[in-house]
Amino acid sequence: MRPPRAPRAYLVCVGSELLAGQLNTHQAWLSLRLRRRGFDVAGESSVPDSAAAIKTALRRALDAADAVIVCGGLGPTFDDVTREAAAAALGRKLRFAPKLWRAIRARLARRLAAVPEENRRQAEVLAGAEVLANAAGSAPGQRLEFRWRDGRPRSLILLPGPYSEMAPIFERVLPRLAARHARGAGAGLVLRLAGVPESVADERLDAVRARFPAASFTILASGGEVSFHAAVRARTAAAARGELKRLRRRALDAVGQWCFGEGDATLESALGLRLRESRLTLAVAESCTGGLLGGRLTSVPGSSAWFYGGVIAYDNALKTKLLGVSSRLLRAYGAVSAQCAEAMAAGARRAAGTDIGVSITGVAGPDGGTKDKPVGLVHIAVSGPGTALLSRRHDLRGSRETVRSRAASAALTLLQEALDGPSLTGTRLTVPSRFHRIGAT
Amino acid sequence: MRPPRAPRAYLVCVGSELLAGQLNTHQAWLSLRLRRRGFDVAGESSVPDSAAAIKTALRRALDAADAVIVCGGLGPTFDDVTREAAAAALGRKLRFAPKLWRAIRARLARRLAAVPEENRRQAEVLAGAEVLANAAGSAPGQRLEFRWRDGRPRSLILLPGPYSEMAPIFERVLPRLAARHARGAGAGLVLRLAGVPESVADERLDAVRARFPAASFTILASGGEVSFHAAVRARTAAAARGELKRLRRRALDAVGQWCFGEGDATLESALGLRLRESRLTLAVAESCTGGLLGGRLTSVPGSSAWFYGGVIAYDNALKTKLLGVSSRLLRAYGAVSAQCAEAMAAGARRAAGTDIGVSITGVAGPDGGTKDKPVGLVHIAVSGPGTALLSRRHDLRGSRETVRSRAASAALTLLQEALDGPSLTGTRLTVPSRFHRIGAT
Repeated sequence: MRPPRAPRAYLVCVGSELLAGQLNTHQAWLSLRLRRRGFDVAGESSVPDSAAAIKTALRRALDAADAVIVCGGLGPTFDDVTREAAAAALGRKLRFAPKLWRAIRARLARRLAAVPEENRRQAEVLAGAEVLANAAGSAPGQRLEFRWRDGRPRSLILLPGPYSEMAPIFERVLPRLAARHARGAGAGLVLRLAGVPESVADERLDAVRARFPAASFTILASGGEVSFHAAVRARTAAAARGELKRLRRRALDAVGQWCFGEGDATLESALGLRLRESRLTLAVAESCTGGLLGGRLTSVPGSSAWFYGGVIAYDNALKTKLLGVSSRLLRAYGAVSAQCAEAMAAGARRAAGTDIGVSITGVAGPDGGTKDKPVGLVHIAVSGPGTALLSRRHDLRGSRETVRSRAASAALTLLQEALDGPSLTGTRLTVPSRFHRIGAT
Repeated sequence: MRPPRAPRAYLVCVGSELLAGQLNTHQAWLSLRLRRRGFDVAGESSVPDSAAAIKTALRRALDAADAVIVCGGLGPTFDDVTREAAAAALGRKLRFAPKLWRAIRARLARRLAAVPEENRRQAEVLAGAEVLANAAGSAPGQRLEFRWRDGRPRSLILLPGPYSEMAPIFERVLPRLAARHARGAGAGLVLRLAGVPESVADERLDAVRARFPAASFTILASGGEVSFHAAVRARTAAAARGELKRLRRRALDAVGQWCFGEGDATLESALGLRLRESRLTLAVAESCTGGLLGGRLTSVPGSSAWFYGGVIAYDNALKTKLLGVSSRLLRAYGAVSAQCAEAMAAGARRAAGTDIGVSITGVAGPDGGTKDKPVGLVHIAVSGPGTALLSRRHDLRGSRETVRSRAASAALTLLQEALDGPSLTGTRLTVPSRFHRIGAT
């Protein structure tokens, strides 16, 4: 029996800045979450801060999909016109909500001496809509359930533009949105891979796709990581779960060796979990990444249990002074060398008094490359108890920011490998000794 | 005399992956370049690899704009259907171009043993279109100049999806596109502000908007920074420049005190410029940001001229060991205190041997907050030569990542202030002494 078609969602991203060079990150973030909940994302429109443009986009989106998600244009300023445009598109009134205004005013009064009268507009709500509380800002979201001109049910969700406000509201409302438009049942998974090129993962997964022709698949590559997304549909939730379980097993047979986590797992959160379980502590020594690796590690809530800190040794003098890398070594091999990376990793471990030290040194560019040490050359090392040492050379491509971000990812991957035992990653070991399952010292 | 309206462009991004979690980076890249050439970007649509969806999006885009730029869907596989969809949208034939096919085949034969018959489709060209050679891949672009159903001229540009193929073709075709649709002249500016809430900046800029009713404006807030975008149009380039100059002066009268740079300037690049000019060097001591500040500073190419590095002192033991913060101070005031921030900043300066040290210590959350020291409490300090010291308390709101990113921005703002002299930022000074224009030691 064929499962019913997936419910459709459409995204409308509001903001002239999206048409003036600002990166639209909401589209990817929202699409991923909608897909996981069984929605087919039928399209996305970015529109300027113009009531007429928003109104047209909304009506077209409502013609095309069951659920329309709008982000942006709920602020207090003259160019925030999503509320008015939505009212015009639906032929509904906006109602001023005095209770909501009191809450917004109280919130703003904590930060501002005088609450601008402009913010009053944020208390205007589409007639019949539910207010979606915003814990992180003054613009509340709105959710309206109604019948569109074809007589069929629609959901319209208005979300504030800033990510930190949009994301928690959307995560809260999504389960209800999915329940409302459920037709049959969907189930999805995401496998997170590192240390493997996209094309290799893709080839390995061919067999999985062939075996599950009714499922939908996406492979995405970004910043040295690859993610594999799969979604299945069935008449019942139990059937969807069963199908997904079989698919997951096949997929792990194909690419499990590179899989560091599932769902929203990041390289750093997966690593943190491993360190916490093993009761191991970590310190960093960063040169070309200048703190990016530490920044990513400390993005994990509770990272203080296993991350102590470290040294940003951008200048060579700091490599010597704070990490104990000898001037002789720097003269003989240079700062971008396996030898320096290894000494930095050991130095981080020693300086911070941790079980493990990890280091990054490289040429991020755009200048500073030579024939022997071109832009993109990065050495990474992991130092463990005793003489345990794992180090690797990478030849990365791309802009300064790409090289730096991939270098940080590569360091996290090498740490995983040090904890996991051997794996094939297609890169070269510069030092044959490696350590696995380091015991807590 | 009223200037003519700006020519309009519309973007259509083709690819199911854009609706499944893949970041759409073409939209920002193309928008920026079109705006700089005087186009108003009227909108963007992301559509799946479906001929019907692409056709509908193309017709709507052609109704809305003078020039429509389409990327993606020009590959050889079954799901590359942009050529067919464009032909259907315009009611034009696709013509097989034997000469183009020979060129594509010769190119592929260099890499592949057998050239797939599938690639023939890449030699199909919209009747009347010019072929845009692709030096980096097999899919050529296409450019068609024609009259749309309203009888007015349109340009349709088809570009391949991969950035490395799309970008050079677009850079080559853009000057001709701009020349074809030129009407009058445009000029624009971006002012970058920090240390001011969006609503306050917005209120101050009201007068500017009132005085330049024909100009277009956007205000954008992100991570503790605010940017103000303005664009003017006039009959001639000289008139547009003159108008923009007057607008800029008014805007700086309104918000100049918070303006750290213009155009593509970031807080870190503007600061780097100031440090380089003043021949001053900088080191960091980061607790709750764990390296984010160092990561941002080193994102600036050439930052090694003024940034030496520093210490990530996430754990208190490292604050003592590497930064010399006394255990007594930590016991008396705690790690999240003005006293600790000041000792950390001085310690960073001393450890790295730089002119200036900057520190961040705070409660990023989600856990670890107390009544006295809630989540979002952040202390920042700048230490200069001698006893020069500037320190500030911030009560930040939002998620862990928002608090951390705003804390890093606040540290950059405090550094600017230390270099600039006094400014009103609406935040509290915990220490009355401050230093301006630090001389190089």
